[in-house]
Amino acid sequence: MTSAPAPVAAALAPGLPLAFSLLGTDSLSAARRGVLTLRHGVVQTPAFMPVGTQATVKTLHPDEVRATGAQIVLANTYHLMLRPGLETLQAAGGLHRFMGWDGPILTDSGGFQVFSLAHKAKIREEGVTFRSHIDGTLYMLSPERAMELEVGFGADIIMQLDHVIGLPAGRDAVRDATERSHRWLDRCIAAYRGLDGPARGSALFGICQGGLEPDLRRESARYIASADVYGCAIGGLSVGEPKTEMAAMLDVVGPELPVDKPRYLMGVGSPEDLWMGVERGVDLFDCVLPTRLARNAALFTPEGRVNIRSRKWATLHEPLDPTCDCASCTRFTAAYLHHLFRADEVLGLRLASVHNLRFLAREMERIRAAIEQGTFSQEARAFEQRYRPVGATA
Amino acid sequence: MTSAPAPVAAALAPGLPLAFSLLGTDSLSAARRGVLTLRHGVVQTPAFMPVGTQATVKTLHPDEVRATGAQIVLANTYHLMLRPGLETLQAAGGLHRFMGWDGPILTDSGGFQVFSLAHKAKIREEGVTFRSHIDGTLYMLSPERAMELEVGFGADIIMQLDHVIGLPAGRDAVRDATERSHRWLDRCIAAYRGLDGPARGSALFGICQGGLEPDLRRESARYIASADVYGCAIGGLSVGEPKTEMAAMLDVVGPELPVDKPRYLMGVGSPEDLWMGVERGVDLFDCVLPTRLARNAALFTPEGRVNIRSRKWATLHEPLDPTCDCASCTRFTAAYLHHLFRADEVLGLRLASVHNLRFLAREMERIRAAIEQGTFSQEARAFEQRYRPVGATA
Repeated sequence: MTSAPAPVAAALAPGLPLAFSLLGTDSLSAARRGVLTLRHGVVQTPAFMPVGTQATVKTLHPDEVRATGAQIVLANTYHLMLRPGLETLQAAGGLHRFMGWDGPILTDSGGFQVFSLAHKAKIREEGVTFRSHIDGTLYMLSPERAMELEVGFGADIIMQLDHVIGLPAGRDAVRDATERSHRWLDRCIAAYRGLDGPARGSALFGICQGGLEPDLRRESARYIASADVYGCAIGGLSVGEPKTEMAAMLDVVGPELPVDKPRYLMGVGSPEDLWMGVERGVDLFDCVLPTRLARNAALFTPEGRVNIRSRKWATLHEPLDPTCDCASCTRFTAAYLHHLFRADEVLGLRLASVHNLRFLAREMERIRAAIEQGTFSQEARAFEQRYRPVGATA
Repeated sequence: MTSAPAPVAAALAPGLPLAFSLLGTDSLSAARRGVLTLRHGVVQTPAFMPVGTQATVKTLHPDEVRATGAQIVLANTYHLMLRPGLETLQAAGGLHRFMGWDGPILTDSGGFQVFSLAHKAKIREEGVTFRSHIDGTLYMLSPERAMELEVGFGADIIMQLDHVIGLPAGRDAVRDATERSHRWLDRCIAAYRGLDGPARGSALFGICQGGLEPDLRRESARYIASADVYGCAIGGLSVGEPKTEMAAMLDVVGPELPVDKPRYLMGVGSPEDLWMGVERGVDLFDCVLPTRLARNAALFTPEGRVNIRSRKWATLHEPLDPTCDCASCTRFTAAYLHHLFRADEVLGLRLASVHNLRFLAREMERIRAAIEQGTFSQEARAFEQRYRPVGATA
């Protein structure tokens, strides 16, 4: 992709919830530059999606989220089904109106949280029953119920219910969960059609599972690739496995997926993983990492993460990152941020969250420009040389 | 004051930190309409000042504070001397630049917090020693040190160090503290002059003490009135005494104070107390109440406070107060605010803080307009008839 076409959005055909235009692919890697059109707006890809678990990107106003360069946000079906619930969200006129965000929204299916957060989850072929982590109320989530919820919320991209298992796991358990996820996808597709999902503006994505087993991953990717879905997600990764294993799985999955549908790597959001994922053909990412780190005083800089509570910042009366154009760095000094964290002031959490989201958005801008200009691999090496991931030795 | 003059700001004469123009006084009460000019801007009075204890109005960005209609904010010398400290604030170029607020700032002297928050406060004629509530470090605060700090911060209005005692207190103790406060005022004035305070842009206010003893209050008001200060504060009230006692003290103090200097009632900020204070001639108020209540889910409405966590709001898909023009009510519903509080989301604290500050700013706008139009008493009765203070019976 050496001559960059203008990133013009494809128009949405009547009754279609999604259009994806692949503008080009990098000549030295699988990196892709695309435009994703959804009912609530256009997403230039590759893109990072901030997470608004409970219908709010933690600590931030929707206008602040938008100002970081975010084009689409994610919300969690598990949390929303418990509180405020589908009925309230529908009475509010949908999730977008409820949370005051008029851009695109992606909802997960709730599966991941049911297995990681809910109490007493019991899985059967029909679906999963669990108790709310808030008040113990018994709930049921099935492929059909997930579709009712996600289409009912009015999300632009909705995820199938899948069976997520922790890693490491035995091969038989991984195979069972993967095959169940495939059967659940079929039921999701049927339910989604029955609910008139496409015309209601929601685009269903399937999720490739398969743990760290290359053959199961390949098989799962092929299943998702052949399914009647608008996009393909890669799930069950970034759950603690070594980064090389995640990369290896992406190398297995990538060639199996359809070229003309968007690819979404779930739960990934460290700067180094974004570059790694894009290099392997991923178009969409989401993660709580940037905002969670921010609330824990860890801020991204071009050289790596820093802890703003460290004494070294107490007297730096300059922006933490002078090259950063975020609303925090252009207005406040590192010393003030340090003070706010030391004094346990909420404004500190906000300013840090804005900074980290803007940092990732700028990384994605840099990535998109590099793909357009045919310099992706070069830029990826430059990033690697400068940015020190946590735990890496210089 | 039946014909309203245009509220034009008085210009600051060279070397003067403050100018106050009394535009007029209500014919049926002591309510005053004025314009206060300070180095960082103009304050239309009567005015309410939001509190930014630790160089931040809790949970809010300075732009949000400004958008509520706030014209001046308060910061606490006790907190700032401990963290980040005078040296850091001076290296930052002053408190305004440090916290990103370019409007006027008032700092208290630290006296109130030393007696209410610090550990092991020991008072002597020289000053007070105490240990930080943060890390136990020993500090000293004297009239001279308070001036060094407040002028050093670069505050527009600075308060004398006073000896604050809790109420109820014996008459002898009140007399001692009041007389000490007078002696400390004299030392503050001398130190303030020595520091070139006026030319550096800080205007010193004296503080009337006297507890709930009318004769001591009168005596103290006369002392402050005759002192070489730019404004007169009324301290030691709103500390738990009945509201009728506070009003009675204002009735005693008012006639003793100079007409041409601004009057500031410290620590007062409930809607009913603002009307009460203005009626008795107060020009400036401050209180943590609106933001503290907001963080505890209590929001002001024209009928009184409501608790946004109450189930009744869960399904109100309209603004909490349809007549409110704040950034929260014009964008989000009561149901969303309710959800944010139920889900322990920080954005809820922010939206509620914006609302409560805007509510008080609008009350002050209404008060200023009523004084200008000669309808203050009428509007005060209308307020009383509609607004139910907490604990009042309908």
